[in-house]
Amino acid sequence: MSSTIPTFEARAYAASSPTSSLESSTIARRVPLATDVQIEILYCGVCHSDLHTARDEWHSAMPTQYPCVPGHEIVGRVTQVGADVTGFKVGDLAAVGCLVDSDGTCPHCANGDEHYCAQQVLTYNAPDRHLGGVTLGGYSSSVVVDQRFVLRVPESLDLAAAAPLLCAGITTYSPLRQHGVTAGKKVGIVGLGGLGHMGVKFAKAFGAGVVVFTTSPHKRDDAKRLGADDVVVSTDAADMARHAGTFDFILDCVSAKHDVNALLGQLKTEGRLTFVGAPEKPMEVSSFALIFGRRQISGSNIGSIAETQEMLDFCGEHGITADVEVIPVSRVNEAYERVLRSDVKYRFVLDMSTL
Amino acid sequence: MSSTIPTFEARAYAASSPTSSLESSTIARRVPLATDVQIEILYCGVCHSDLHTARDEWHSAMPTQYPCVPGHEIVGRVTQVGADVTGFKVGDLAAVGCLVDSDGTCPHCANGDEHYCAQQVLTYNAPDRHLGGVTLGGYSSSVVVDQRFVLRVPESLDLAAAAPLLCAGITTYSPLRQHGVTAGKKVGIVGLGGLGHMGVKFAKAFGAGVVVFTTSPHKRDDAKRLGADDVVVSTDAADMARHAGTFDFILDCVSAKHDVNALLGQLKTEGRLTFVGAPEKPMEVSSFALIFGRRQISGSNIGSIAETQEMLDFCGEHGITADVEVIPVSRVNEAYERVLRSDVKYRFVLDMSTL
Repeated sequence: MSSTIPTFEARAYAASSPTSSLESSTIARRVPLATDVQIEILYCGVCHSDLHTARDEWHSAMPTQYPCVPGHEIVGRVTQVGADVTGFKVGDLAAVGCLVDSDGTCPHCANGDEHYCAQQVLTYNAPDRHLGGVTLGGYSSSVVVDQRFVLRVPESLDLAAAAPLLCAGITTYSPLRQHGVTAGKKVGIVGLGGLGHMGVKFAKAFGAGVVVFTTSPHKRDDAKRLGADDVVVSTDAADMARHAGTFDFILDCVSAKHDVNALLGQLKTEGRLTFVGAPEKPMEVSSFALIFGRRQISGSNIGSIAETQEMLDFCGEHGITADVEVIPVSRVNEAYERVLRSDVKYRFVLDMSTL
Repeated sequence: MSSTIPTFEARAYAASSPTSSLESSTIARRVPLATDVQIEILYCGVCHSDLHTARDEWHSAMPTQYPCVPGHEIVGRVTQVGADVTGFKVGDLAAVGCLVDSDGTCPHCANGDEHYCAQQVLTYNAPDRHLGGVTLGGYSSSVVVDQRFVLRVPESLDLAAAAPLLCAGITTYSPLRQHGVTAGKKVGIVGLGGLGHMGVKFAKAFGAGVVVFTTSPHKRDDAKRLGADDVVVSTDAADMARHAGTFDFILDCVSAKHDVNALLGQLKTEGRLTFVGAPEKPMEVSSFALIFGRRQISGSNIGSIAETQEMLDFCGEHGITADVEVIPVSRVNEAYERVLRSDVKYRFVLDMSTL
């Protein structure tokens, strides 16, 4: 499938095995096809998923193929477009998130839900239909993506701080929107990390009352700075009692095992809790907590391309970006260790000019 | 609160302790107040909840007070009405379900959701606001209930077989309606017992495709007789694979611990599973099964009075009743033992003329 497509060389930061550090290397990108957009990558956010994939920790779902180039929070400028590209021209800002392709014909794609397509192609470590091997992500000098999966970035945004919108942003924006979070609603955000801090910003921007649940009392001030009206220390039963039974919606951004039933008790009748963090082990859920009060729990995974564009436009209008720590690419391995310690406020972003 | 209200004597079948059999006795009912309806009970269904309460197995929620008269699937004829009763007259058929009162003023009540009212009064073993002590249920010759909580019963229905509609019926009808089960939808019903067999009948009557999940291969023929298009033995992985990922909605009627994640795998993207059975221990739920496919689980508890009336009217139009085994009241203790063995197709109903 690959041999006939012309390629060019790009610089990248890649892992060569589950246990090796990421190091500078070169990779092949396809020369843009008729509907492709070539992007010079300016910034790429560092997502916990990058680390899981680089270290082959999700092998049950998709074993990592090496060299592995992670990165799906990509912001850059268009440097070349294919003959049939209509929405982008050279010099435009552009962004790429977690997906770079889908079949385009299935009912999900026809419905604008390409993130549900069974043939969806993730931005890294997914079978590359053009060059063979697997897709290579945004820790690179450039990327080439079909125009259907390229997003427009408002010029008003700080570009480094906009990068995490492509994963952490849409992952929290979508469920808040889908569950009707608006003015007058009361929303809980569980966990104040890369996802949670975006959840607070969006819920606040939508006009809702926002309460942060955290196990870390020292995050109180920062939660309020980000827009929270109140902060509850979830390990403190008395603190938990203050808002019990009052939430319309809770966005659970915690990927470690935690007490879901205690959170269900915070919901109103017919209240809803959505997971975007993914604890490795099953959660223990009491059916009584669901049945009495007719409560609901669900999961949510990123969002459609159209919704991602809607989110970026919303961020442009409201001046919303992530709180980021911009680092040179050479410090990505150190950043991974700090991500594991939750020692980042609230997202690392790689400055790709340092590659 | 009690001494000034006139009472009359009614016959009943009551438990006098958690370990004693139910036996014939007499109880006091209030003489109908201005808005009360007095009903001669003709039939009362036997619900698993009756047994739990009679044996004080739910003491963490509400300790059972003795004597305990269970029964919340009540069908009878009106024998007296208070001066202000407008919807019922002597001789009318009438029914009472799980609730006999609520505060009538809270937002839930104002919204017609009295089954969410924090002050709701259950039909048995709930504080009796008129006579003190606790409410006494339908294993009795009569009951006196405020007209707001009395249902009309279509004359066309078999009255014994209609009794279980008041709990098993509304418990399954409500979530199927709330989750939009209509023609063209594919619905799974998990567990073919008192609840499940009603779920099959309703889902079929709503025009959906219906598949029963059971651990008992011998229930296959009966499931099809009740209206199922197909039957899956949920312990057989190959059988489970046949419909994987195809259901819009699954109604889980099983109260024993079971593999919820395997059921989530049967749902489509954005599919929904609702529990009406209540396993005593927490269920283990994989967040991945929810997140990828944006699936949803929820619980549901009975339904509002208005929806219960809608359900009874629907049953009248479509000739739907429960499959029942009618027994004399004296056999209720034996029936409890058979309920524990799931040895009933599909609901016991007490013939109150035998009291």
